Amino acid sequence: MVSKAVAKYVQALHHKKYRQRYGAFLVEGGKSVRELLSSGLAVEHLLVSPEFAAQLGPLPPAAPPPVLASESELTQLSTLSTNLTALAVARRPPELPLPPTLTQTRLVLALDAVADPGNLGTLLRLADWYGLPGVVLGAGCADAFGPKTVAASMGSFARVPVWERELADWLASLPPAAPVYGADLQGDNVHRLDLRPAGVLVMGSESHGLTPAVAARLSRRLHIPRAPGGGAESLNVAISAGILLDNFFREL
Amino acid sequence: MVSKAVAKYVQALHHKKYRQRYGAFLVEGGKSVRELLSSGLAVEHLLVSPEFAAQLGPLPPAAPPPVLASESELTQLSTLSTNLTALAVARRPPELPLPPTLTQTRLVLALDAVADPGNLGTLLRLADWYGLPGVVLGAGCADAFGPKTVAASMGSFARVPVWERELADWLASLPPAAPVYGADLQGDNVHRLDLRPAGVLVMGSESHGLTPAVAARLSRRLHIPRAPGGGAESLNVAISAGILLDNFFREL
Repeated sequence: MVSKAVAKYVQALHHKKYRQRYGAFLVEGGKSVRELLSSGLAVEHLLVSPEFAAQLGPLPPAAPPPVLASESELTQLSTLSTNLTALAVARRPPELPLPPTLTQTRLVLALDAVADPGNLGTLLRLADWYGLPGVVLGAGCADAFGPKTVAASMGSFARVPVWERELADWLASLPPAAPVYGADLQGDNVHRLDLRPAGVLVMGSESHGLTPAVAARLSRRLHIPRAPGGGAESLNVAISAGILLDNFFREL
Repeated sequence: MVSKAVAKYVQALHHKKYRQRYGAFLVEGGKSVRELLSSGLAVEHLLVSPEFAAQLGPLPPAAPPPVLASESELTQLSTLSTNLTALAVARRPPELPLPPTLTQTRLVLALDAVADPGNLGTLLRLADWYGLPGVVLGAGCADAFGPKTVAASMGSFARVPVWERELADWLASLPPAAPVYGADLQGDNVHRLDLRPAGVLVMGSESHGLTPAVAARLSRRLHIPRAPGGGAESLNVAISAGILLDNFFREL
């Protein structure tokens, strides 16, 4: 049985305003909740179906005691409509330092107005696969801790640091030696370059591309070749990032 | 003003059962409707806001006369909630032949239980970018003509042929010389192979991988290397397909 106060808190966290105010976010669904519990992130509330509770195994010492909830209670509290066996409230992780020198040795992914939460979650998962040190979110990006982003990240929300920055200013603050890459249909063919994973890779909004102030900071434009006879005008932003990252990490 | 009969028809087409019964589907939003109109696909109904009508330009000769609709009418008829300026009903294109010899010279994408319509639409867009001759959909795939698939395909729904097949049987019917590739965490590193775009590339469901009868038909398993220190267990199915296709089309 979920208390009214907890129910109200959970429902407030459907909204970005309250996620920011309380520094907390929702993790929905059994798979994501398991990832959360093994991540080391602080957990405030853990609401589970009896079936999920039975399979849960030992909890980390700092986890709150799980509260049993019926499937209909969980569905009412959740932004999801199906498959609901568990829901948690987690503390937003404290922001890690982002030293400008990081981009001299590591490749940081930066996103410019990537507004679709599904795309953002998929990009976090991709950053996790490639072991990137984190993702910088510029203005106009979806909330990294929104429910759809968390779900699409498939657990990577708990592992990939994010930083919110005014992107053009942040790029301007980096050491000049750090390359700033961006995708561009008029860029250099990635298959012909010897790319190394250091610097920044900036991906823009699907509908509008990079904002001009950000585009002005690129030191190298990259182009994914379309096959002869190909019809699509462009690729999904997460697909483009995946292909570019595979090219950055080829020689390792 | 949209007639009651048309409104009822449009609303029926929200459902797969009626899309199949009538051989028709919905195209929603200005960008997708423009792609439809320039595609050569048959259009049955064209409902547009006055603003969209003013910018529409000349229609193809076979297009029906556009019917003006208010934004609230369009929103009521649509599966989308925002940005609604145009909605069309299109005829499902007749299925093209799928000769078994096609896979000797071209790479066909085949999908095994890819149930998420957003992923399916993104995969159609990817197939379009790489100029693939089409996509074979096995059991358990999302509807290629469902509204979310159409939207995610960003216009590629009008250009990429699809075939619905029992996948294991279809793979068994192919010439033995045609390679059948599949993604597998235990497969060969794609960076070390000289892949050529002919045969079949099979992508499986994200949660369950390839069904055993399909997996038994693979002649080569491909693995996208994860970077050292990477944390994610796997990649999104459309991202994996994008990276694999980039590797197939590198040398062209």
